[in-house]
Amino acid sequence: MRDELVRLRREIHRHAELPFLEVATAALILRELEGLPVQIRTGAAAMTIDGVVDYPSVEQRAEAAAAAVAAGFDETTLTALAENGTAVVVDIPGARPGPTWALRFDIDGLPIVESTSPVHLPARAGFASQTGAMHACGHDGHTAIGLQLARQLVDGDFPGHVRMLFQPAEEGSRGAAAMIPAGVLDGVDRFLALHLGHSLPAGLAVGTGVGVQATTKFRVTFTGIEAHAAGAPQEGRNAVAAAATAILHILALPRSSKAATNANVGTIAGGSATNIVPSSCVITGEVRSDDGATCEDLLERVRGVIDGAARTWGVESELVVTASATTLHPDDVLVDEVVAVARRLFGDAGVRRTATMSASDDATILAREVQRAGGLATYVMVGGANEHPHHHPLFDIDEDCLVPAVRWLEEVIRSADDHSLHD
Amino acid sequence: MRDELVRLRREIHRHAELPFLEVATAALILRELEGLPVQIRTGAAAMTIDGVVDYPSVEQRAEAAAAAVAAGFDETTLTALAENGTAVVVDIPGARPGPTWALRFDIDGLPIVESTSPVHLPARAGFASQTGAMHACGHDGHTAIGLQLARQLVDGDFPGHVRMLFQPAEEGSRGAAAMIPAGVLDGVDRFLALHLGHSLPAGLAVGTGVGVQATTKFRVTFTGIEAHAAGAPQEGRNAVAAAATAILHILALPRSSKAATNANVGTIAGGSATNIVPSSCVITGEVRSDDGATCEDLLERVRGVIDGAARTWGVESELVVTASATTLHPDDVLVDEVVAVARRLFGDAGVRRTATMSASDDATILAREVQRAGGLATYVMVGGANEHPHHHPLFDIDEDCLVPAVRWLEEVIRSADDHSLHD
Amino acid sequence: MRDELVRLRREIHRHAELPFLEVATAALILRELEGLPVQIRTGAAAMTIDGVVDYPSVEQRAEAAAAAVAAGFDETTLTALAENGTAVVVDIPGARPGPTWALRFDIDGLPIVESTSPVHLPARAGFASQTGAMHACGHDGHTAIGLQLARQLVDGDFPGHVRMLFQPAEEGSRGAAAMIPAGVLDGVDRFLALHLGHSLPAGLAVGTGVGVQATTKFRVTFTGIEAHAAGAPQEGRNAVAAAATAILHILALPRSSKAATNANVGTIAGGSATNIVPSSCVITGEVRSDDGATCEDLLERVRGVIDGAARTWGVESELVVTASATTLHPDDVLVDEVVAVARRLFGDAGVRRTATMSASDDATILAREVQRAGGLATYVMVGGANEHPHHHPLFDIDEDCLVPAVRWLEEVIRSADDHSLHD
Amino acid sequence: MRDELVRLRREIHRHAELPFLEVATAALILRELEGLPVQIRTGAAAMTIDGVVDYPSVEQRAEAAAAAVAAGFDETTLTALAENGTAVVVDIPGARPGPTWALRFDIDGLPIVESTSPVHLPARAGFASQTGAMHACGHDGHTAIGLQLARQLVDGDFPGHVRMLFQPAEEGSRGAAAMIPAGVLDGVDRFLALHLGHSLPAGLAVGTGVGVQATTKFRVTFTGIEAHAAGAPQEGRNAVAAAATAILHILALPRSSKAATNANVGTIAGGSATNIVPSSCVITGEVRSDDGATCEDLLERVRGVIDGAARTWGVESELVVTASATTLHPDDVLVDEVVAVARRLFGDAGVRRTATMSASDDATILAREVQRAGGLATYVMVGGANEHPHHHPLFDIDEDCLVPAVRWLEEVIRSADDHSLHD
Repeated sequence: MRDELVRLRREIHRHAELPFLEVATAALILRELEGLPVQIRTGAAAMTIDGVVDYPSVEQRAEAAAAAVAAGFDETTLTALAENGTAVVVDIPGARPGPTWALRFDIDGLPIVESTSPVHLPARAGFASQTGAMHACGHDGHTAIGLQLARQLVDGDFPGHVRMLFQPAEEGSRGAAAMIPAGVLDGVDRFLALHLGHSLPAGLAVGTGVGVQATTKFRVTFTGIEAHAAGAPQEGRNAVAAAATAILHILALPRSSKAATNANVGTIAGGSATNIVPSSCVITGEVRSDDGATCEDLLERVRGVIDGAARTWGVESELVVTASATTLHPDDVLVDEVVAVARRLFGDAGVRRTATMSASDDATILAREVQRAGGLATYVMVGGANEHPHHHPLFDIDEDCLVPAVRWLEEVIRSADDHSLHD
Repeated sequence: MRDELVRLRREIHRHAELPFLEVATAALILRELEGLPVQIRTGAAAMTIDGVVDYPSVEQRAEAAAAAVAAGFDETTLTALAENGTAVVVDIPGARPGPTWALRFDIDGLPIVESTSPVHLPARAGFASQTGAMHACGHDGHTAIGLQLARQLVDGDFPGHVRMLFQPAEEGSRGAAAMIPAGVLDGVDRFLALHLGHSLPAGLAVGTGVGVQATTKFRVTFTGIEAHAAGAPQEGRNAVAAAATAILHILALPRSSKAATNANVGTIAGGSATNIVPSSCVITGEVRSDDGATCEDLLERVRGVIDGAARTWGVESELVVTASATTLHPDDVLVDEVVAVARRLFGDAGVRRTATMSASDDATILAREVQRAGGLATYVMVGGANEHPHHHPLFDIDEDCLVPAVRWLEEVIRSADDHSLHD
Repeated sequence: MRDELVRLRREIHRHAELPFLEVATAALILRELEGLPVQIRTGAAAMTIDGVVDYPSVEQRAEAAAAAVAAGFDETTLTALAENGTAVVVDIPGARPGPTWALRFDIDGLPIVESTSPVHLPARAGFASQTGAMHACGHDGHTAIGLQLARQLVDGDFPGHVRMLFQPAEEGSRGAAAMIPAGVLDGVDRFLALHLGHSLPAGLAVGTGVGVQATTKFRVTFTGIEAHAAGAPQEGRNAVAAAATAILHILALPRSSKAATNANVGTIAGGSATNIVPSSCVITGEVRSDDGATCEDLLERVRGVIDGAARTWGVESELVVTASATTLHPDDVLVDEVVAVARRLFGDAGVRRTATMSASDDATILAREVQRAGGLATYVMVGGANEHPHHHPLFDIDEDCLVPAVRWLEEVIRSADDHSLHD
Repeated sequence: MRDELVRLRREIHRHAELPFLEVATAALILRELEGLPVQIRTGAAAMTIDGVVDYPSVEQRAEAAAAAVAAGFDETTLTALAENGTAVVVDIPGARPGPTWALRFDIDGLPIVESTSPVHLPARAGFASQTGAMHACGHDGHTAIGLQLARQLVDGDFPGHVRMLFQPAEEGSRGAAAMIPAGVLDGVDRFLALHLGHSLPAGLAVGTGVGVQATTKFRVTFTGIEAHAAGAPQEGRNAVAAAATAILHILALPRSSKAATNANVGTIAGGSATNIVPSSCVITGEVRSDDGATCEDLLERVRGVIDGAARTWGVESELVVTASATTLHPDDVLVDEVVAVARRLFGDAGVRRTATMSASDDATILAREVQRAGGLATYVMVGGANEHPHHHPLFDIDEDCLVPAVRWLEEVIRSADDHSLHD
């Protein structure tokens, strides 16, 4: 199983793709599951494109599909994925009554140029990304684990029903929210998301992440008035300057003594020429907190900063929320269960009940939706022994983490019984 | 005459006083004019205190009077001046019909610590300021010139009528506006203000300054919410930070291709303790331009910056205009006259029709008021050979400029005839 | 005992004094202990003035003494305290062998104007501060508790030896460091500091604070070049602007995912006149973190910001560290002891082993010094039921917390035995 | 002649091209001069590509050539221009001895989207730009005037020799400096540059611009360290924030009382993703002054700001000067000559000796080079009656200005005689 998992994750790694453009990855998922006795949903049955902010354009999707064709994937499949969306939902029925599980595996990569250093395994072993994007957050492993888990479970020898959500666009927190309207959580009793890495020892099983942060992503457009920088500067209204003011003040938002208060402006683009007072500038950024109310307060303060910066420079501003995720409130009973299974498999030393995750994941939106309907949820982690932090050009997981992850999830599902059903 | 002028200006220099606190200086003026056949007005007959923003407190005025008493001036006089205001208006009637002149001489010093360097004449010759304030703008010379001119003219051998306005608080642009309501410009046909220095050769006569800048002084109070800096920073609203934002953005106001656009924040004070998010901060500043509309526009933009900074930090702000002066529009016919007189006295090489003055003077408010009523005005300058700029701890005038200034003004007044009256 | 504690703390509250100026407070301590069989040290035997940054001037101390005389305290005592320092060290020997305890009670107030609202007990009951300073951090209670505790213990019926450190200048973190060189910790086996308040129920006993933050206080002086704001702005180098830049960027220092990263600029003063480019500005501020290395890193980054701001504006800068405190590492064995005593006294519901304190206290410097010499330390807290946060004009403690605090400390000391001595 | 000038300028207007990419424009120039008895230099004989900062890439030039082919220009010509440069130098010998003239006509457009409003003649009359770039500075008129002037002068009926420099990349100030090393000024006695517009009445002839500003364009690259914005913000070094700091402080550079002090940051691009602390940011900007030394001082201060901003944020910075132009010092004798000719042609009312031009032009580099070698230079202007400022999407010239411009230049050249030669 290890060889197969390594083969899968390396091929996925090589074809890293950006959010909502995971056409090769989704095609690979479909290819690997071909012929198995599972039910597969794609397109509008797996996600709803309408309402996604900044969904890639037809051109971007066509370009992604062309690249995937060039890389050897099936053109017909790619065309459909590029047109209808890259989410894939796989249902596997169990042979006896039991809970309906939803397991989330995220499949997208990041806009990071992968390291070519020989110290970096993907570079050394020849499976570094060929696409410009990079799997610098372990989603290659997640996807491989999901595929192998499906193959293990097709024997049906487990109670209940398993649904695997291969989710696009976890990075940027837009994919989860797009899958809910397609009904992928209907009837779900238990929700699990899995994440690898976290600078924990390879294979260490963690019952739930704690400190998972709520986040809101935003884009602000500043619009001023263009003017010749020497001929009539007094007639200009400087949109780039307003953005600069906004950036410094977003970074200077008050800290809290009670919760994390992260704020970032990640990108900026503005202006047209060296000698023209710039009339346009766009920034994108985010706020995060491990406390939901604090995250909302941060967004309110960002709005104040944006208004203030615009007023200061006499320009117009418009803030659009582009994505969001929420905090995690795992259910103790489910955490107890997965921890108990892990202890049986790996011994006490191979398990922790909790570990801190100072990051966000829109799996929280799925978890909250399942909980809202009366189900249970947790967010399990498996150590990846990564030396470099997530989102780093040298990030990689120790492939020794893959088999334990599959074994753990498989055993959690096989060993569930009716008694543990919420009711 | 030179010795007397030097003696006068040195004594005045030694007793430099801050705006509206010129009690020793006014007492000296009264003392020097004692017994002369002139009419003198002080107190409410010379200026109106009501409406002056930030007029010194009773305590400040009592302190200034006490210092002047200690320096040997008459206590009764000082008490009256401290109570009723420090403006002195002197009327001298001419023996024959002619225009009514108003001549402005400003009498206040600056909050600058005078240099004690031996290269600085006042320090070397023992007449440096003993008060903490400093005559770093030549008003000591102006006052001496006015006093000597009064003595020259008491013979009455000139047409018309001369009124001398010994004006307090030119620095900060509050004194001129305070004198108008007292009626000191009633019936005035011609207005002259005199200024020494300007890095021009000693004694050079200039028919009018050009580029004199309109200015508005302002004070802004930011009010936030105090909080423990580590215990609850999220509950604070930082008034000092808002002031910092305002300062940087006032300095970054757009330049104009058409006019000077000066902006300054000169003072700041805020906060209470190192470990407390500061809830209060006060800044004072000014805008200036050689174009009146541009100056008004600058003030509007300052308001925008203040509002924006307050909004950015979630604090309250209040802007108060504390003083203002306007631009200068000298009357050609009067400039012609004074230039013609100067050429007769000093030859062409000793005269310029105009020189640039990149500064402000609230004499412009008096000039505009006289012009509004149909009179003529100009702002003459006499070179002071100052090596260091005005408002510098080493500023001083070459005393050779004093006699030419008196002779020029005297001759302008004596040689005026009815034909030059506007009508 | 309650009445006496209330009387003491109210009198202390009424005479709140600023750091190192606690002459009335120290005189009150001496007065209350007069005639008791204790050994008292003051002056150089209790603290070392040399090396304290910004120690109050002779004039400030004389003024404080004069105010205390006016309030009815003994003039001779006050003169000595104003001259030699306001620390008071009280030694009480026990009747049998045992550990030497040092107990820290801080005695200073804050530069906060106390609320006069009728909702505020000190205002309503007539014991609000009469001094301009305010006990807004509970030190009035600490001092009263220390005094009462001394009275309880003079019977000598306890093992070992008790030393009480009545410490000046806890606010600003300068007093503790000044006491160590006077030898006040020599031979100390166990260190306790006590703090009231923390928005915990009145009388709740907490075995140790956690999250106590290391802090460094600093003062930065920016020195530029003065210039007339309109006449020669290009010749100025703006010190206030550099301070503004520094402030915004200190507030925008990167947050950490691993530790608190507080930074504050609490005060600013700069500039001389509205129309002069300001050449001087002074700011004071602090950094804090619950992680010592992070606190050091913050200070390094502040230095980078100061250098950068100075370079940006072409001015000079000088940063002086004025005070510091460190993190707290309480000894479990001592925490166990004090918790056990508290449970005996108040029951389980009246005790917590730990509570978070998002603040700093230079008792940590004393604690670390005792630990360095092989002793044990903890920082106990007693709930004060304060509705408003510490350092707030409406802060006050519920006086019901005073008796439990005295009883707890007394019992901890009386019940210690040799077995618990570290060795 | 008017119809032909209008036809030419409209065709040029329609094909506006960006600096160094003026392949269609240069091809049009060559096409229009085909068959005339003039000597034409292109490629390395007209400009030196080496040393030009940010010269367009092979791909950009190929794209420009492809667009020009699509627009109907000759492919062979375009390929050569795209490969070797877009400068065109045209020599026309006169029939009798006389001065060698160099006349500069700039040919490039701006990255501005042209207005489609019906109030805008190019939109209304169907000759608006089809390229995305725009002739918003009148270079379409300049080029047409140059072409028509060449046709007029081919009769050789004038003293001396005329060399026309059709210069690329005036916008951005890189083209003039690139032409000098190719020897295009060798042997030149007199230099004229022509500029239309300036909000002056159509056809008004101006002997020389005054106030032409020296300028330096720069690009700054900030390089920090990427980090996850919530997972490890303390490990990031924020390049976008450093750029923001730099922008605000460049705009806040001190104003001068003696000269214009323009500073602009025109473009910014940085960062990679919303949730990543950005490690890279590039800004481009410029400084300008009508005083050369002030312009150099501004650049020094920009360097200080860049260093300071980088130090503040702990990032690296690199400033590259990408282009520059200098001030204009026209030779009175040549200005006298061109003014005299203009008065003969248009009468006194149609001529001004000088007009202010608050802008820059790298023709000043050519002028200075000719003057350095002993020649004379001026920069003539012809009013274009433009309602909107230069570089505005609605900028356009009144075509009535074209014929007077050609007639004036023609007559200046025809009427020169040996006596006016410098020697």
